[in-house]
Amino acid sequence: MSQAKKTRTTVDIYGKDYTIVGDESARHVRMVSSLVDEKMREIHEANKSLDTTKLAVLTAVNTMNDYLELQKQYQELKSSIQQKEDKQEND
Amino acid sequence: MSQAKKTRTTVDIYGKDYTIVGDESARHVRMVSSLVDEKMREIHEANKSLDTTKLAVLTAVNTMNDYLELQKQYQELKSSIQQKEDKQEND
Repeated sequence: MSQAKKTRTTVDIYGKDYTIVGDESARHVRMVSSLVDEKMREIHEANKSLDTTKLAVLTAVNTMNDYLELQKQYQELKSSIQQKEDKQEND
Repeated sequence: MSQAKKTRTTVDIYGKDYTIVGDESARHVRMVSSLVDEKMREIHEANKSLDTTKLAVLTAVNTMNDYLELQKQYQELKSSIQQKEDKQEND
């Protein structure tokens, strides 16, 4: 999320305010932030002794893991399309 | 990332140690963690006054935003495949 453009949106994530500056709509920023807030609360439920910094870092790790998993699925889908197209050309 | 299975991997993210328990390989956990560490350092470069908690939360927000963007692309790709298949069936 770029920090250099038009929209300034203030959101509450896990009890702290963040002003996020970017080119996405305020609605989108609020939606993304609420997903992060939700994930922090989920991880807190599972590990009540974690301080907020560790909770936030683990939330980032968790989200990055989901991202890489989705990226793998996306690349598999793309290569299966490519294979189908190559097959059709050779048929 | 599940906290209930076999591998225990200790990683350093932004100067703190985290023991991550999960079913992914230690190599995968280290790779994910190094991407989070890298993103935290990037955001720190752009906003040097942020404390570590805010930095980690913004890293999670940033990664969540990337995830949603990729999810959109993935769904668009899937629906374009579906449209092609429907078209081939009707031809």
